[in-house]
Amino acid sequence: MHFSSETSSNGVVERNFTLGDITGVLWSPALPSGDAPLILSGHTGGIHKKAPGLVTNAHHLVSTCGFTVAAIDAPGHGDRRRDSEDEAARAAFARARETGAPIGPIIIDYNTSLAERAVPEWQATIDALQALPDIGTQAPIGYGGMTLGVAIGLMLTAVEPRITAAAFGPVFAYEALTEAAKQITIPVEFTIAWDDEGIDREPSLALFDACASLDKSLHIYPGRHNQMRGFDADAGVRFFTRHLGHTSTSSA
Amino acid sequence: MHFSSETSSNGVVERNFTLGDITGVLWSPALPSGDAPLILSGHTGGIHKKAPGLVTNAHHLVSTCGFTVAAIDAPGHGDRRRDSEDEAARAAFARARETGAPIGPIIIDYNTSLAERAVPEWQATIDALQALPDIGTQAPIGYGGMTLGVAIGLMLTAVEPRITAAAFGPVFAYEALTEAAKQITIPVEFTIAWDDEGIDREPSLALFDACASLDKSLHIYPGRHNQMRGFDADAGVRFFTRHLGHTSTSSA
Repeated sequence: MHFSSETSSNGVVERNFTLGDITGVLWSPALPSGDAPLILSGHTGGIHKKAPGLVTNAHHLVSTCGFTVAAIDAPGHGDRRRDSEDEAARAAFARARETGAPIGPIIIDYNTSLAERAVPEWQATIDALQALPDIGTQAPIGYGGMTLGVAIGLMLTAVEPRITAAAFGPVFAYEALTEAAKQITIPVEFTIAWDDEGIDREPSLALFDACASLDKSLHIYPGRHNQMRGFDADAGVRFFTRHLGHTSTSSA
Repeated sequence: MHFSSETSSNGVVERNFTLGDITGVLWSPALPSGDAPLILSGHTGGIHKKAPGLVTNAHHLVSTCGFTVAAIDAPGHGDRRRDSEDEAARAAFARARETGAPIGPIIIDYNTSLAERAVPEWQATIDALQALPDIGTQAPIGYGGMTLGVAIGLMLTAVEPRITAAAFGPVFAYEALTEAAKQITIPVEFTIAWDDEGIDREPSLALFDACASLDKSLHIYPGRHNQMRGFDADAGVRFFTRHLGHTSTSSA
């Protein structure tokens, strides 16, 4: 893991890093505490690890809870090189937008490929983060994400025992994700949008239903997934604080 | 409104009252503040206004938020006289338990009757509460309930503009309730149990869908409705505090 830059604002230190081909960022408290939980942040498809909403959320988790937050670009996203599969998917999305063809099958194919590539990348990133003296192997690890970040997160959480709590936003659900959910037994919080043009309700309900966790909840809000309301960030803080065991200083 | 008793414990004053045939209870802070919101608490079918869980919730709302909480017995419940319709419903439930017949139709008939009778009773109770000097007409009013308390609360909220926020737990949903939900435009929070033996998911999802509020949310937990987890009480506190505008002293 190579740190390429370090900046600081409002008590939050931001360090960009690379790990082989992976490009990532680590947000930490300026005054770190010993056992701060580590939250892995998975971005939406088509954007990148430092999209504005993700930076705001990361700062909130760091400054409100003293958590450490790590994000990596998905393959072909952000600062990553695009391979032929990424270019083909981009072209397919562009064609579908032009012709009005359904994008569901393209999302399923591309997210399946991205998750296959991203799971070992996240595992290598966790290895490298745990080797850092200010994180170590004792920090409890949570995962949070939306859409593509959920597709990757479900596949990752199903096989990665170091993740002990996960908060999943809306996702275009498909069979492999439902199968992954059946393997997940850690505490999970799902949040979906009720009137999402691109994401049907039924597969999301089926995904929640399939999840094997005894401690799971599903929170539904009106609107589309890009209109999720502000106080959900606090719900995430409460969820991770409850399960990863650090003191929150957030007011309800 | 006639107060028949007054007791106090842990900073919460409990006053039993009668209003004509209606039997009720009012919980208030020992040190009331001026603009404390008033929460109307609707009990589950078969129990009464002071069942243990309701008392605990009321004490939590009073001592954590400084709210005032009022509860009345549903017709034929608690300290109320049973009329021939109440006796007939009890006999029908007992027969169904004995023979294993479905209780859905009995619930629909009985809850319809109870809601018809209870809505004007709640409205008279609100009138009387607003005439009390320590409540008045400026206190914002919220409604919270489960099962029968939801059936009554939906019918009440649809016609009672003084209620400006409502938190509804699981309910055996039927057509009249879905129609009532279409009239409701105030902020509403629904909470349901996912694996409820007696309450199907689909009508509950349809009820949420039908609700006309722009500011609505649905929270789903595993298990049955009598197994809802403890931290939901805090969610209710946050919901009412957010919408009725009093300072919460609750920690997240």
